[in-house]
Amino acid sequence: MSIRRTTVKAALESAGACPEIRVMGWVRTRRDAKGFSFLEINDGSCLSNLQVLVEEGIAGADLVKDLGTGAAVDVAGALVASPGKGQRFEVKATALTLLGGADTEAYPLQKKRHSDEFLRTIAHLRPRTNKYGAMLRLRAALGQAVHAFFAERGFYWVHTPIITGSDCEGAGEMFRVTALSAAEAAAEAVLPPAERGSRDFFGKDAYLTVSGQLTAEPLACALGRVYAFGPTFRAEHSDTSRHAAEFWMVEPEMAFADLEDNMELGEGLLKHMVRVAMEDCAEDFGLFAKYVDPKLPETLATLLDAPFVRLPYAEAVKILLAAKKTFEYPVADGRDLQSEHERYLTEEHFKRPVVVYDYPKDIKAFYMRQNDDGRTVAAMDVLVPGIGEIIGGSAREERLDRLSARIREQGLPLEAYGWYLDTRRFGTVPHVGFGLGFERVLMLVTGIGNIRDVMAFPRTWRHLEF
Amino acid sequence: MSIRRTTVKAALESAGACPEIRVMGWVRTRRDAKGFSFLEINDGSCLSNLQVLVEEGIAGADLVKDLGTGAAVDVAGALVASPGKGQRFEVKATALTLLGGADTEAYPLQKKRHSDEFLRTIAHLRPRTNKYGAMLRLRAALGQAVHAFFAERGFYWVHTPIITGSDCEGAGEMFRVTALSAAEAAAEAVLPPAERGSRDFFGKDAYLTVSGQLTAEPLACALGRVYAFGPTFRAEHSDTSRHAAEFWMVEPEMAFADLEDNMELGEGLLKHMVRVAMEDCAEDFGLFAKYVDPKLPETLATLLDAPFVRLPYAEAVKILLAAKKTFEYPVADGRDLQSEHERYLTEEHFKRPVVVYDYPKDIKAFYMRQNDDGRTVAAMDVLVPGIGEIIGGSAREERLDRLSARIREQGLPLEAYGWYLDTRRFGTVPHVGFGLGFERVLMLVTGIGNIRDVMAFPRTWRHLEF
Repeated sequence: MSIRRTTVKAALESAGACPEIRVMGWVRTRRDAKGFSFLEINDGSCLSNLQVLVEEGIAGADLVKDLGTGAAVDVAGALVASPGKGQRFEVKATALTLLGGADTEAYPLQKKRHSDEFLRTIAHLRPRTNKYGAMLRLRAALGQAVHAFFAERGFYWVHTPIITGSDCEGAGEMFRVTALSAAEAAAEAVLPPAERGSRDFFGKDAYLTVSGQLTAEPLACALGRVYAFGPTFRAEHSDTSRHAAEFWMVEPEMAFADLEDNMELGEGLLKHMVRVAMEDCAEDFGLFAKYVDPKLPETLATLLDAPFVRLPYAEAVKILLAAKKTFEYPVADGRDLQSEHERYLTEEHFKRPVVVYDYPKDIKAFYMRQNDDGRTVAAMDVLVPGIGEIIGGSAREERLDRLSARIREQGLPLEAYGWYLDTRRFGTVPHVGFGLGFERVLMLVTGIGNIRDVMAFPRTWRHLEF
Repeated sequence: MSIRRTTVKAALESAGACPEIRVMGWVRTRRDAKGFSFLEINDGSCLSNLQVLVEEGIAGADLVKDLGTGAAVDVAGALVASPGKGQRFEVKATALTLLGGADTEAYPLQKKRHSDEFLRTIAHLRPRTNKYGAMLRLRAALGQAVHAFFAERGFYWVHTPIITGSDCEGAGEMFRVTALSAAEAAAEAVLPPAERGSRDFFGKDAYLTVSGQLTAEPLACALGRVYAFGPTFRAEHSDTSRHAAEFWMVEPEMAFADLEDNMELGEGLLKHMVRVAMEDCAEDFGLFAKYVDPKLPETLATLLDAPFVRLPYAEAVKILLAAKKTFEYPVADGRDLQSEHERYLTEEHFKRPVVVYDYPKDIKAFYMRQNDDGRTVAAMDVLVPGIGEIIGGSAREERLDRLSARIREQGLPLEAYGWYLDTRRFGTVPHVGFGLGFERVLMLVTGIGNIRDVMAFPRTWRHLEF
């Protein structure tokens, strides 16, 4: 058994039969008949199993009777055309070796279907199921798709810092980072505010980033087009199916560009990712279309087929006010749209993705570019059916005087933004950017309803296992 | 001026002249002559500048006299063959617009050379210099190269969690993560140890990961081949040129594989990255070969030209003991190799990369696979000239009884590893993996000697700016 291992994927995609092959994987099922057994083997390389025929008398045949679901085996044999339906090839084994058994009594992943809730408690084993294996392969493919999309368009991947000294990133609750022990922290806590953090690793308070934007902007104002793609953190105590304390964001920043370029970029990226999921990952995608949400292909085709609706905020409000529907939160010009409003627009009114733009400046962040009307900013949110907001972005205010004024108006400490303002002080250029929630895209293309089920090891309120 | 912008890179790589073109960028230099001026424009898309001829009388020509280094301009004109040497094309402007000026007095990046130390204090502006622009483009290209390398080999990108509940990852000091305010933390600190963390976000103590390995292993034991590529943290108080509190690691895990496969993978990855730097990024690489380390092409060619030396630890010790050299730390069989020993092997003795393997088990982590000799483990470190250790990896102990015994022997709490041990309990398979320090590769291919200068915004002991 000294020939090199072939993956199940490579074996199934093989151009033809092969007299000598070696595969390794985990047993998914076993069927016994008189004189032989069939094993279905999966090695994670793809969703499909490879069928292995183990006949009485071959080396290791006596092991078969003890092989349960989850056992790992090493099989040598010939790759032959399969007489069974559903697969082109199977392996006729000449030798079987046990790599690792799986006690049938104790192994939690028996053939029956398990609830998502149960599978979350064994997140270290659920990738061995069809559904979570497919999800993780899709996740990997979409991650690659993000990089390919941006590389093709001349964007440079940048690693914006995770630990930040600024608690002014302006988006929700932040985690603190410290190298002090609990006891040292207690001594630190009684220091006067100005000395707070002085004994800690960085000599000042440190946090986990909620967005790479503020550091990505100076990079775009040097390299032209950049994108961050990394983990992001929120310490919100929201125990919902859409909130995680740690999640991945795609954050492009593009110099010499306006809001329309930004909309085009966002729409292009989203369509590219959906296309990769449906076309390049057809097998894994098929599982979700079959078992999770049968309307998935239709929903996604609608997303691909036509340009996204582009709708000024003021128009959105008019449509919502005219809607024959009672909302929990009242709609009013000047107020932010709630999730229910966003979903009405994209799911009921337009039945396709909608880019809402030009929001009232008072409900948006300080860095968004002010429009000439004096009331709105060049912000945009992309809303998609089933998810709601999936992208939030804006043109960035590049005019030093206006930006400084907004920082002061919002009661933020101007002195903390010195380096950020430098990009406007020296050779300022129009620039735009957005944030795309990577997990939301995964929920979109799989139909999975809970963010905990589109990540390998989710971190949420009160949950930090593994 | 309504035609779309062309990047400097695209203009310089253009197939031929073009009557109408529009470029935007930052002025690097200006030269005035009678009746016209030359501007050198850079937009970050590549290292080269684009020369722009601004003749008297064109729209905006009067702006030229105020254009200093760093100002941002929008230029319309014709792309024409350049009579000057060093560039194929230049732009003959028909209209010039100022996007953003840069006060010559205040702008810190004047034409003269600046020290790396000074540039670190303006990390938000240094990407506008040739050196740091080139570094960041190389960094982006090598990031893409990592993804391409693994995708081609059937590896799936996984996002291992950053926040971890385990302080047993076994590699140095960890940062703690908390959602408590300083005052709340003080109240928490006086709780009995068992209740510590109970009021915090996760209901228990939380840390920043020092390695994705422990969570990547169960994923490899489901998907076959995976790699993590993300930020990693160490709270070591080491204020050296090689330590950062936050850095990026590439961590593949490969099921059904042994230490030799692991060595091949590591060597292949490193060579791939070096090749991409030298060949695909020839222009940016050229800057480092010219100004930072003239021996760079030679050093890297040596790395590419031959297989890496593979050397058992025991042989390494013999070579070191026989070396006509006084080391600061004495060499002895059974002791870990120090940086000076590693560098002697790779820089002086072999003069090329060396993979040292089969280390004494007592100096290595609990998860490394025990060899049959009872004394060593199947660990490997890849050492390269100029850097020292760049990869550390091992076969992972897949035998449940031996792994449990090692955890106990090292005094670690077995109960904390329940989920990790499950991968050995159910269908265990031989598997291997390693960690590659991404910044170390960047230091290798650029010759840059300080880790602070291969990251956009470094986080180090006492430094948390921007």
